[in-house]
Formats: sequence, C-alpha cells, structure tokens
Amino acid sequence: MKNFTFQNPVKLIFGKGTIAKLASEIPASARIMITFGGGSVKQNGVYEQVMAALKGRTCTEFWGIEPNPKVETLRRAVAQGREFEANFLLAVGGGSVLDGTKLIAAAMPYSGDAWEIVLDEDKIGDVIPFASVMTLPATGSEMNAGAVISNLETDEKFSFHHSFPRFSILDPETTFSLPPFQIAVGIADTWVHVMEQYLTVTNVSPLMDRWAEGIMQTLLEVAPKIRADQHDYDQMANYMLCATMGLNGFIAMGVPQDWATHMIGHEITALHGTTHGQTLVVVLPALMSVMRDQKEAKILQYGERVFGSKDIDSTIEATENFFRSLGLPTRLSELNIGRDTIDEIVRRFTERDTRLGEKGNIDAPTVKKILELAK
Amino acid sequence: MKNFTFQNPVKLIFGKGTIAKLASEIPASARIMITFGGGSVKQNGVYEQVMAALKGRTCTEFWGIEPNPKVETLRRAVAQGREFEANFLLAVGGGSVLDGTKLIAAAMPYSGDAWEIVLDEDKIGDVIPFASVMTLPATGSEMNAGAVISNLETDEKFSFHHSFPRFSILDPETTFSLPPFQIAVGIADTWVHVMEQYLTVTNVSPLMDRWAEGIMQTLLEVAPKIRADQHDYDQMANYMLCATMGLNGFIAMGVPQDWATHMIGHEITALHGTTHGQTLVVVLPALMSVMRDQKEAKILQYGERVFGSKDIDSTIEATENFFRSLGLPTRLSELNIGRDTIDEIVRRFTERDTRLGEKGNIDAPTVKKILELAK
Repeated sequence: MKNFTFQNPVKLIFGKGTIAKLASEIPASARIMITFGGGSVKQNGVYEQVMAALKGRTCTEFWGIEPNPKVETLRRAVAQGREFEANFLLAVGGGSVLDGTKLIAAAMPYSGDAWEIVLDEDKIGDVIPFASVMTLPATGSEMNAGAVISNLETDEKFSFHHSFPRFSILDPETTFSLPPFQIAVGIADTWVHVMEQYLTVTNVSPLMDRWAEGIMQTLLEVAPKIRADQHDYDQMANYMLCATMGLNGFIAMGVPQDWATHMIGHEITALHGTTHGQTLVVVLPALMSVMRDQKEAKILQYGERVFGSKDIDSTIEATENFFRSLGLPTRLSELNIGRDTIDEIVRRFTERDTRLGEKGNIDAPTVKKILELAK
Repeated sequence: MKNFTFQNPVKLIFGKGTIAKLASEIPASARIMITFGGGSVKQNGVYEQVMAALKGRTCTEFWGIEPNPKVETLRRAVAQGREFEANFLLAVGGGSVLDGTKLIAAAMPYSGDAWEIVLDEDKIGDVIPFASVMTLPATGSEMNAGAVISNLETDEKFSFHHSFPRFSILDPETTFSLPPFQIAVGIADTWVHVMEQYLTVTNVSPLMDRWAEGIMQTLLEVAPKIRADQHDYDQMANYMLCATMGLNGFIAMGVPQDWATHMIGHEITALHGTTHGQTLVVVLPALMSVMRDQKEAKILQYGERVFGSKDIDSTIEATENFFRSLGLPTRLSELNIGRDTIDEIVRRFTERDTRLGEKGNIDAPTVKKILELAK
C-alpha cells in the first residue's frame, strides 16, 4: 500500500425530509447567497422546501449555473455575492451548480479573475463557507473538494480542488423527477469515477478493491430497478449513496489512480458540449481495450468479481453492455462526433505533451488509438 | 435505507515513516501530555520516533494506561494534565491508551469526577484536543469518537462517545513486534465490529453490506498471511486499514446495528479481565445460533458472500473456525469461565432490564441461552 493522508470533514445529511435541517445547519446571522441551475427545482418542490427552511433569513438568489458551469456565468455570481456581502453560499441543484459554487466561494475573496484560480489552485486564499442541497447524484461534488469549470472563450474544461462543503443534504425524493437520461449518465459517471480509482493494478489495497467493486456491484443491481421505477425510494437512495461514496476519497486510500478517461472525456465536452457522463461511456471501453496489457490483472479481477466474466474481451463487452443497458450510446459515431474532433483532441494533447493514466504513459498517440477505437 | 447523518473529521496519516509528521501536525506552542501504556513502545522504536519528532517541544509523559483502561488510572492522568496545564494530548499505543486519553481529554476541563462522564456523556463540555499514534490495530478508536472505560471498584465497563481525534498516525511497521495473540484478538475484534453493524437484516443498504463484507473478505485473505509472517508490510497495512475502517462509521450509514455481542463480552471482561477480542469470539457464534430465526436472511447472505457456505449451521461453523484459525479459543470452558459468571451476567442484565440487539429483544433470558451455548 502507498502512504496516504485522508481527511473528509463533510457532514452528510441523508434521507427523506432532511432539507428542513438547513435551518439548524446555517448560522442564523449568515448572509446567504443561494445558487441554482436552470429552474427545475421550482418544478419538483425543492425550491419551496429550501425557502421554507430559510424563512426569515437574509438571502439573495443567483440563478442560471448551467451544466458544465462556465466561468463567464460564475463571474456574474461573484459580482452579485460581493455586492450582497454574502458570507455563506448554498448550492441547490446538481454537481454543476455545486462545482460552480466552489469557484464562486474561492473567487469572491480573490483579487484577480476567477479563471486564474481554475488554472492555478495555489492562488486560492480565503474561501467563503459553502454547503449544498444535492438533487442529482453523479459527480460526488457534495462530499469532495473538487470542481470542474469550463471556459467558453477558450473551449477549455479544467478541474481544481480547494475545500469541502460544510455539509451536504441529500434527500433521495428530490431525484424522483429527474429526466431518465440524467439518471443514466449519473450512474455512468459514478461507475467511471470508481473505475478511475480502481482499474490500475492488483494487490495494492485489497480492501479498497473490495469497496470499489462493492459500489459497482450495487449499481449493477440498482440500475434496472431504477429504470423500472424511478420513484422507488430505496433504490434511489442506494444509487445516491453510491454516487457520493464513489468520489469522496473513501475508495482511494493508498492506491494509484488513472483518470485518463475523464481527461479525454472533458475534451469531448469542451468541443461539443456533450454531457459529461455520456463522454465517459464512449471512452472507457476503448481505453480498457487499448491498455489491456498494462491493466490485464485488474481487468480480469474486475470482470470476475463484478460481472462473473472470465476474460478481458467479455469483461470489456460486459462494461459496454452495462452502459448500453442504461440507454446510453457508447460510440462517437452515435453522437455524430467524427474525425475532426479526434484530430483536434490529439492536437491538444500533443501540444500540452499530456501523459495520462496511472503510469503517465497515455500520451497523444495512445489517446488517438483510444478515440479511433471508440468511433 | 434509514435517514442518517455522517461526519468523521479525523485526519488519517497512514504509512511507513509517518510518525515524523507529528512535528507539523501539533501546533508549535502546544503544551503536550503524551500518554502511554505499559512500555512496549520503548522496545519497538516508537518512543524514540515520537520523541525525535517532538524534540524541543513542551511535553510531559504519563505512563501506565492499562488494557481495559481503568478510571482509577485515568484520574491520576487528569491530575497530571491539569498540573502541567496541558492543552494537547497525544496517545501513543493501542486502543486502550487512546480510549483512556479520550476520557482524560473530557475530564480535565470537567469539574466533577471522571466516572460521571462515562455514565453520562451529556455532562461533557469543553474537551482538550487530542490525537494518536496508533500502534495496535483493533478498536478503531483512532478514527471514531467512542471509548470504553472500566471501573475496578464497581467491576463495570461502559462506553461513552464525545469527540474525534484531531489526527491519527498509523505506521504498519509499528505492528511488526506485537505479540501474535494481540494480532489475533485485534483481527477478531475488527471482525466483530463489522458484524455488529452488519448482521441484522438484508436489503436496507446494499452498499453498506458490500463494504462490510469487503472488510471480512479482506481479513479472511490477510489473516493466514500475517500468521505466516508478521513482518509482511503490505499485509499488516491491509489489516491496519481494515481495523480502522471497521469502526469509523463508514459501514454504518443508514443501517440498523446490533452490538449485543459487545455488551455481553464487556461483562466477561469486567468480571474476569479477559481480553476484549477474546470475549467476542466466544459470544458471537453462540449469539448467531440463538438469534438464527431473526437473522436468518442476513446470516445466509454473509455465509454465501464471505465463506461461500450455503446454510446457517455451516456459516456459524465457518465463523467459529475462522476464529480458531487465529489461535483463539471459542468456548467459555476453555477460558475457565463457568456457571457462576453466567449467573452473575444474567443477574446484571436482569437487574438493569437490558434489551440488546437491533430489535431490542435480546433480554436477560436470551443472554442466558447465548452464554449456555458458549460453554
């Protein structure tokens, strides 16, 4: 096992009716800026629950943090937060709203432009305390310190890490009305988060292996039940817990990590606006195939324990079939993404001399092989 | 899934050579009382490493916190800590040293007697910050808020909960020289911690089930390797991580818990001084047998996933055999504990009208059945 330091101070408040706990979790004297996405929380009752819990508090609302949150939007939120002198931020929505709020929290006290922080997290000083009501299980943002921000001007999408939410409230009932496509890409996103921390080498930390496999075994059981009935509280709760546990450090203790699938996927999103989880299911099976020699032992362990499969090909096929069972296309051509995009992504990785993966050996030519196999 | 709130702020610093990090983890201005057990840390190099890391700091040492730490000993530590005006406590040793230190931390600022706090944790106010260098994986105390304290005068042993260590340093190399019996009871203790949080009902939180099973599957693989070579770094690291993850809340989200085995075991320790983990392996198989109807579905799931067994009897047998494979006796008679002790424990539970287990239906007559089966 590799040496590691682990700490995750987030208070996770999970279950039916827990939005009401906002009242006791946010200091009475706080000047709160509540951040939202496009407005779905006004349809599903979440907005009313939040406002009821915060009745009589000093609040301002910032609306319009979009999927793959854009720094252009967040700059406006920073200005509004400063104007209001907000000293507490509450993100209400999915991972994008919270990711965007993490940048607002760091950028409000920062003297330069918000994008500078994304490019260099060492520039982060004070951070406004923030928390979340998480309504879309997928990114794990509710229990980690990371965020992914896009820049329209430069067609770039980068991640940065600074601080954890004070608390996150997760009520599975808030997910009942999500569009089935959002659930599907959320499950896929969770699966690939786990794989990025798992599909490297064997025998480094057998407990972490078991826990990673445990999340995937659970998702495999839960996914068809959710497809059948998205109002099944227990199954939505299971999925929501898997999503949070998939990217909060709990399965990453003492193990190497990959993250090449995410880095390649981010480029597809940056160029086409493709939903994040959708990009991952296109890239992962192809990456497994191209990296099959290096990852052989772990692919076999994963195949046997998660799918009961016996060889690499059937394991990759089972993985792709699982993604397809969610209703998701798994090929670039199905997304109308072609040669130009592959060339541009390879050009970017060549220019940056990017080397991805647990051994840092997924370079631009390897990325090209992966994307060509994903066509 | 049941509603739950989870938060565990402990900074876990894990790996080879990490004791040196004490220097940066404890504030330079701290007045540190370092608490120790019986002196084994002077033989295995841990004491030297701690002292080297804290060279030049303002420290006092308190020695002699015994296994099943006694309030009588801890009162002396409280007096020494007050005298020294300690504002930081560092426990160096096993779970007992840390458990004792948790009481010292809460009792130093408390105006009454330390035992009052054990009996009523609501009396706890300010707590001196504390941390640990954990050298004996077993209790999970390094990453939880609980402690178990004994009272010689009253032959009682009770647990209380207040606050978490600021950090815990775990270097698997510190475990190489532990007596094999300590390793064996540590593995058993970890196993039973997991079982207390797991062996209740099925289908409440399938992810938590997988994670609990994952700890036991890992222990099952690791235990014989450790018996063969206690200097195998990776296996000792695996075991140490299992012990910490077994009782830090990570497998307890949204699930019911049992803890009857512990409550019964504590009474055996209180009356005979029997090592904690040793008491558990005597009680658990008998408890599984007596509670087999109520726990049927979960025993079958556990048997199949952990041992590959198919029925309740063979699953209980596999559990007892695992404990025996650690070199531990699993019957009261092997510990020279007889009828008098059973009668006294049943008398205590009757007097207190105790109702244990996830359904609160393990009453004194049921405890009697369990102990008679464990003879």
